[in-house]
Amino acid sequence: MKTFQNPPKSKWDTLCERPNVDSATLSELVRSVFQRIQVQGDIAVRGYTKTFDNVAIEEARVSTSEIATAVQSVSSELKNAIALAASNIEKFHTSQKADVKLIETSKGVNCWRESRPIENVGIYIPGGSAPLFSTVLMLGVPAKIAGCTRIVLCSPPNLHGEIDPAILYTAQLVGITEIYKIGGIQAIATLTLGTETIEKVDKIFGPGNQYVTAAKEFASTKGIAIDMPAGPSEVLIIADESCVPAFVAADLLSQAEHGADSQVVLLSDNLDVLNNVEAELMEQLELLPRMEIAKKALENSRFIFLESIDQCIVFSNRYAPEHLILASENMNKWIPSITNAGSVFIGNYSCESAGDYASGTNHTLPTNGYARNYSGVSLDSFVKKITFQEISAQGIINIGPAIEIMAKAEGLIAHKNAVSLRLNTLRND
Amino acid sequence: MKTFQNPPKSKWDTLCERPNVDSATLSELVRSVFQRIQVQGDIAVRGYTKTFDNVAIEEARVSTSEIATAVQSVSSELKNAIALAASNIEKFHTSQKADVKLIETSKGVNCWRESRPIENVGIYIPGGSAPLFSTVLMLGVPAKIAGCTRIVLCSPPNLHGEIDPAILYTAQLVGITEIYKIGGIQAIATLTLGTETIEKVDKIFGPGNQYVTAAKEFASTKGIAIDMPAGPSEVLIIADESCVPAFVAADLLSQAEHGADSQVVLLSDNLDVLNNVEAELMEQLELLPRMEIAKKALENSRFIFLESIDQCIVFSNRYAPEHLILASENMNKWIPSITNAGSVFIGNYSCESAGDYASGTNHTLPTNGYARNYSGVSLDSFVKKITFQEISAQGIINIGPAIEIMAKAEGLIAHKNAVSLRLNTLRND
Repeated sequence: MKTFQNPPKSKWDTLCERPNVDSATLSELVRSVFQRIQVQGDIAVRGYTKTFDNVAIEEARVSTSEIATAVQSVSSELKNAIALAASNIEKFHTSQKADVKLIETSKGVNCWRESRPIENVGIYIPGGSAPLFSTVLMLGVPAKIAGCTRIVLCSPPNLHGEIDPAILYTAQLVGITEIYKIGGIQAIATLTLGTETIEKVDKIFGPGNQYVTAAKEFASTKGIAIDMPAGPSEVLIIADESCVPAFVAADLLSQAEHGADSQVVLLSDNLDVLNNVEAELMEQLELLPRMEIAKKALENSRFIFLESIDQCIVFSNRYAPEHLILASENMNKWIPSITNAGSVFIGNYSCESAGDYASGTNHTLPTNGYARNYSGVSLDSFVKKITFQEISAQGIINIGPAIEIMAKAEGLIAHKNAVSLRLNTLRND
Repeated sequence: MKTFQNPPKSKWDTLCERPNVDSATLSELVRSVFQRIQVQGDIAVRGYTKTFDNVAIEEARVSTSEIATAVQSVSSELKNAIALAASNIEKFHTSQKADVKLIETSKGVNCWRESRPIENVGIYIPGGSAPLFSTVLMLGVPAKIAGCTRIVLCSPPNLHGEIDPAILYTAQLVGITEIYKIGGIQAIATLTLGTETIEKVDKIFGPGNQYVTAAKEFASTKGIAIDMPAGPSEVLIIADESCVPAFVAADLLSQAEHGADSQVVLLSDNLDVLNNVEAELMEQLELLPRMEIAKKALENSRFIFLESIDQCIVFSNRYAPEHLILASENMNKWIPSITNAGSVFIGNYSCESAGDYASGTNHTLPTNGYARNYSGVSLDSFVKKITFQEISAQGIINIGPAIEIMAKAEGLIAHKNAVSLRLNTLRND
């Protein structure tokens, strides 16, 4: 972890850089996996599962009895916790439903938008040490609210050929029953191309390692939509003298434990705050099971003293963090100044963990500076908004002449004719 | 143009295919243009303009005097037409502003979303035979409503080193003043990478030929967002016996004149309608200045008789057309059944030209089947939606225990600690 005191603005771009992730070398591997699955289908998928996940899977689809067993094996304590989180996520995402507003732009010209679910969506849930059942909630709940007709979940099997019971439990809770033991590039290729037994989807969601990320990027050039480009997770905290240094340290560590390539940034207008947080951080770090991961992440991380909270906000907007915590009792007045961030946590009790699990906001957020140009996942991510227009005879009389003039000026005479014919008919009526 | 009578469903996928566009061969060219502009900046841009647009441009930025001259040269008739269109587009896109809704998901846990403009946006306007000033309205008006701070327009110069006056006039009307005479791949590379004199942007919008499309796809892997993947324009019309065959023919032709790779599809439950439209089409075709283009497009096109309007809607949803026209006096009851379309035109007076220019809806729409998983451009395309959460002491007491349980079950102990520390402090208070 490095500390910077009042770095000149010319250095800010460097301070906003993320750990470098080289994805170019993966593109050949991704291409070859897609190609083989395109040609050989299920057989190729089974082969890749054997190669990459080290387990022979005859039947990729999780059976109803496996799901039933998983449901029984999850503790009621965890079930209750998941239920509370699901309820909050459902409330917040339901509030994102858009009302249909009919707008009469000119007399007789009515325009409106209606949402329609994306019919087939795929959700990727990584395997590995942390079974991310929370991500099943974050993607499954809004998909259900949107009304997606088919929701497919892929997750890599462990060495026993199983998916973590908490993932299966959460999937059935939100109503996902089409679940496959397929991970990595082969999962994304299967969702993109389909096989003999698995139909392809229209859009793919979910986090993943660099292989999954590269595969999703490739999928997006093959007619499939993806939630957003991905990168390592990150948090930026702006703390003033009213913060609680122990809380700030804990929030930095909860980000740092995600992965060695995670990045945490602390900004303050108060040197004591930076020093106190650092002392707390060192103390808390030693007690973590994932201490080694967190330590590596802290090597990529920065403590920065700036002259004012105003300057901290300017820096944060330049950095465009996935998570932004305003660790303070009175920073609400800065909300309108925040222009680039994925999700914002306000006040000393709004820890990032709350948004990761249970506040109700979505934890699938833009990383790597993408908060400049992408939103996090929301109900909008699972729908299309179709525009409609209904134009009456009076309506085309009102706007038709303008269309004729514009079409002619663009040299598109057939466009003009489509209006002229209608206007002539009405004149002759 | 081919006519199909009641084709079996097994053939529908083939009938939904678009003309094949091969973009793979362009990727090397795109990569090399990006690379040279990355290294050589403005000099490389000038070189490509000389090579591809056959004109030497010393100063790429359009001067204020050039804009002033353009403003004078546009007829007041066209200015008035553009003003009407701009007003309708502004009304409809302003109605898309989202209200901030504060949701208390659990007692003491407040969540909401706020929109922020994407700060730097680039708009690409193609040159060539049709000066698409209408697209300047469709992209510039919502960018202004969103509050984008910098809107850059690129368009290729003609052989005299000029951009069409109607494009310059429309740009200044909507408040765009940073305009460059740069086209093709080099424009997209400039907007993506920046040069010594031109700053890069965060998101790129606008139509273009296969070169521009391939360049935008490449840009989207370099940290830049794009409006949507592009393909040739298309219309699908569902006509019943209450349609006006001459109007339907005119609408088909207004799509066909866009380009030889455009596609038009007509569905009906009535053979007479198909025959009458075809007769009208042949008659109207002969009178078009762009007849040759339209004829080529019609070769890719299909007239299909299906048993019922219900079946026509099912086919249309499978095709997922950019533009869908319901050519009928009474097809409104089918609106809820439409699941995949970019923009829908209802009734005999709602011609596609109206949406192309002046009804108020956006004409930047998903083609090539992307209406399955993408929306057209709207105000949403120019903003990010940031989530906020403010959790009180009572709020973390209410949801904290659930977060602790879930974090522990995911093996993320630092996530749990961030909550535990807060709960412990509150218990000791």
